[in-house]
Amino acid sequence: MFSGNAPPLAMRDTASTIPAAGPDAPARRDAPAAPRRPRVVIVGAGFGGLAAALALRRAPVDVAVVDRRNYHLFQPLLYQVATAGLSPAQIAGPIRGILRHQRNATVLMGRVTAIDTAAKTVIAGDQRVPYDYLVVATGARHAYFGRDEWEPFAPGLKKIDDATDIRRRILIAFEKAETETDPAERERLLTFVVIGGGPTGVEIAGAIAELANTALARDFRNIDPRQARIVLVESGPRILAAFRDSLSAAAARALVRLGTEVRTGTPVSSVAADHVMVGAERIETRTVVWAAGVAASPAAKWLGAEKDRAGRVIVNADLTLPGHPEIFVIGDTAAMQDAHGRPVPGIAPAAKQAGAFAARAILARLKGRDFPGPFRYRHFGNLATIGRRAAVVDFGWLRLRGNPAWWLWGIAHVFFLIGFRNRIAVALDWFWSYLTFQKGSRLITGGGAEE
Amino acid sequence: MFSGNAPPLAMRDTASTIPAAGPDAPARRDAPAAPRRPRVVIVGAGFGGLAAALALRRAPVDVAVVDRRNYHLFQPLLYQVATAGLSPAQIAGPIRGILRHQRNATVLMGRVTAIDTAAKTVIAGDQRVPYDYLVVATGARHAYFGRDEWEPFAPGLKKIDDATDIRRRILIAFEKAETETDPAERERLLTFVVIGGGPTGVEIAGAIAELANTALARDFRNIDPRQARIVLVESGPRILAAFRDSLSAAAARALVRLGTEVRTGTPVSSVAADHVMVGAERIETRTVVWAAGVAASPAAKWLGAEKDRAGRVIVNADLTLPGHPEIFVIGDTAAMQDAHGRPVPGIAPAAKQAGAFAARAILARLKGRDFPGPFRYRHFGNLATIGRRAAVVDFGWLRLRGNPAWWLWGIAHVFFLIGFRNRIAVALDWFWSYLTFQKGSRLITGGGAEE
Repeated sequence: MFSGNAPPLAMRDTASTIPAAGPDAPARRDAPAAPRRPRVVIVGAGFGGLAAALALRRAPVDVAVVDRRNYHLFQPLLYQVATAGLSPAQIAGPIRGILRHQRNATVLMGRVTAIDTAAKTVIAGDQRVPYDYLVVATGARHAYFGRDEWEPFAPGLKKIDDATDIRRRILIAFEKAETETDPAERERLLTFVVIGGGPTGVEIAGAIAELANTALARDFRNIDPRQARIVLVESGPRILAAFRDSLSAAAARALVRLGTEVRTGTPVSSVAADHVMVGAERIETRTVVWAAGVAASPAAKWLGAEKDRAGRVIVNADLTLPGHPEIFVIGDTAAMQDAHGRPVPGIAPAAKQAGAFAARAILARLKGRDFPGPFRYRHFGNLATIGRRAAVVDFGWLRLRGNPAWWLWGIAHVFFLIGFRNRIAVALDWFWSYLTFQKGSRLITGGGAEE
Repeated sequence: MFSGNAPPLAMRDTASTIPAAGPDAPARRDAPAAPRRPRVVIVGAGFGGLAAALALRRAPVDVAVVDRRNYHLFQPLLYQVATAGLSPAQIAGPIRGILRHQRNATVLMGRVTAIDTAAKTVIAGDQRVPYDYLVVATGARHAYFGRDEWEPFAPGLKKIDDATDIRRRILIAFEKAETETDPAERERLLTFVVIGGGPTGVEIAGAIAELANTALARDFRNIDPRQARIVLVESGPRILAAFRDSLSAAAARALVRLGTEVRTGTPVSSVAADHVMVGAERIETRTVVWAAGVAASPAAKWLGAEKDRAGRVIVNADLTLPGHPEIFVIGDTAAMQDAHGRPVPGIAPAAKQAGAFAARAILARLKGRDFPGPFRYRHFGNLATIGRRAAVVDFGWLRLRGNPAWWLWGIAHVFFLIGFRNRIAVALDWFWSYLTFQKGSRLITGGGAEE
């Protein structure tokens, strides 16, 4: 079944409505038809989906990757786009570019609207993509615990457009404060509230504090950005709950050193255009960032599957959908558990491991081998950065804070960035920011900003 | 009058409604008031406005730069953002960053809505900015010769958001073609029409051809991007009319070598969602870029001034507004003429020279010196690039084409980019693209693309 010299048109001899006629297809059509290869459709080109696709690169299958965007996003660094440290193109790479040399892979840009599990077909608008095996890896979105009315005032951070939107809000707040004559309003404009004390919230709060303290410090004449107030709100008893106590306390101290207020133990009770209520306390602010909750993508609905409270699909120990051994649901889309029945954290390494596992399971079944056993998540550790030369690393066997943690965090993130060019560009940008305290991407774009 | 140790608050003791109260203002207020320094307000932080501001850096004046954006844009490279070669942050720098060390300069982000020449006040929303001298440098927008209904189908290229919009349209056309089953529609999607044969049109057409021929060439499975049809339409008898005949012919040949069709001598008679009419010929297309016409910003209206057909303010030989020796109108906003009465071209060097001239004229008058004489534009030459190692350079005393012209073009553009970091980043990006034939910024963002 394996063909080392497979033609580049995936699914070319199927009933799919995807055009099989490429510019050089006619010549190929005259050639004797190869036996149909199993079709693996992967929905979502995040860490999990890409890991599955890449792990199938030498497999005798036709892979189709369906994503509504044309790029893979390195989400762990998205907060740096939101805080003007990096450009979108530095942390995102076109999916087609990443899979260019994988001859058995096709990329389809499209928004999945339904999955017909009976006909084994993914439906994306007017495209119908048939599969023999399906990997659903559509990730999660931010969620407001049923308070969707907060969203306009407290944008979350999942997409590039979210990040440039938050960047615009933060930079415009400083611009408005510069020309504001009412002292109360000026103070409101210079107050930034970040809701959620996980790694993303901590990283955003630290990065806003750094932006105000260094890059913007001498840019204004009527305000002093260093007097901006940054408040990180966490409803649980401590920030970075996934880290051990001592590191989470070290992170809180580092944030305070940067001038950030850390509020723990009290949930946000309301968010409006001009304030946030934290318990009974009213914080006047014009800029709120949401880093508190996520909910899985609508995959459970597409699949008619059982889901948990966060919308994640309940899966078997081998990440398949109950009753559908041909469907794998992985990453943030699934309620994955480790060998001890504990939930697997929603981080990039977990999604990558799940993607590679799904690929191995598909290959094993194609070869008629046994069920590969349950998915075993291996936790390497937690990393979070707070600001210039401050980070916390918790690998279990290794715990670091401060300077060494920050260097390790930086090296790890550059190393895992996709694409040699992006690695160099990000490393140079960081090095430049490190030397000069400057931020290179302080552009207010979009949102009618330029009309 | 000159104070080498001026406090950082510009216009701090005026009747302006700009808040004079910065965080450290109270202490300063108690100090004996210095004699009021003349206020120079510069509207627009393009090449002309920035040149004027920077030329006043040691002058005993308070400078206020008003712009609706927070960044200066290096417009000659904007087409590279539109064609996925560069990121917005690489060709734009925050105005505050550029003027950070200029202690006599204030930056105000705001949209000018009117100018009260009697009260000598610029009105930007609810801000009122008083001036003793005014420099209007608001540039030009693209214009459709009275056919504004073409704009939705044929976006122009003046702002960063224009560029990311055009980039999205071009990349989505290839994505749609990949999954399109109707051959006629696929061909329409793979046809790109650029209207306007000046440097911008030539550069866009060449860059789209290169994108299709190299960076995208192997990314698709059902279409061959190299078969994309790119048509450059120029109503005049030849492209690059500002260059001499031989170079304009060389540029046309270079475009044809890249696979671009060049249509000259026939104007576009209509633009619609699915086609362009060039004279009687109908070109089926889904993607049109407008590079044909510009019109000055509404400055003439604000000033109640006489304007030419393109909306440019008629100015005296010293670039002042007739009857208003305190108002300078420069760059693309003005109908500037050279010493021989010929119109000055709308290019960056001309705007820069005019900005520096206005600053010198203001300084001369402050010192009670004579009128500095008429503005004398010095034309250094014309440059345009067509693609990889193809460009034309016309300096009068030096004419180049092909490889040497391309290197000169690249070096000149990197050299004039504002900011050391951007220069390095752009040079590295180009070098990387040059080695690998890749384009680094192929992201489809905005426009609801990610919803």
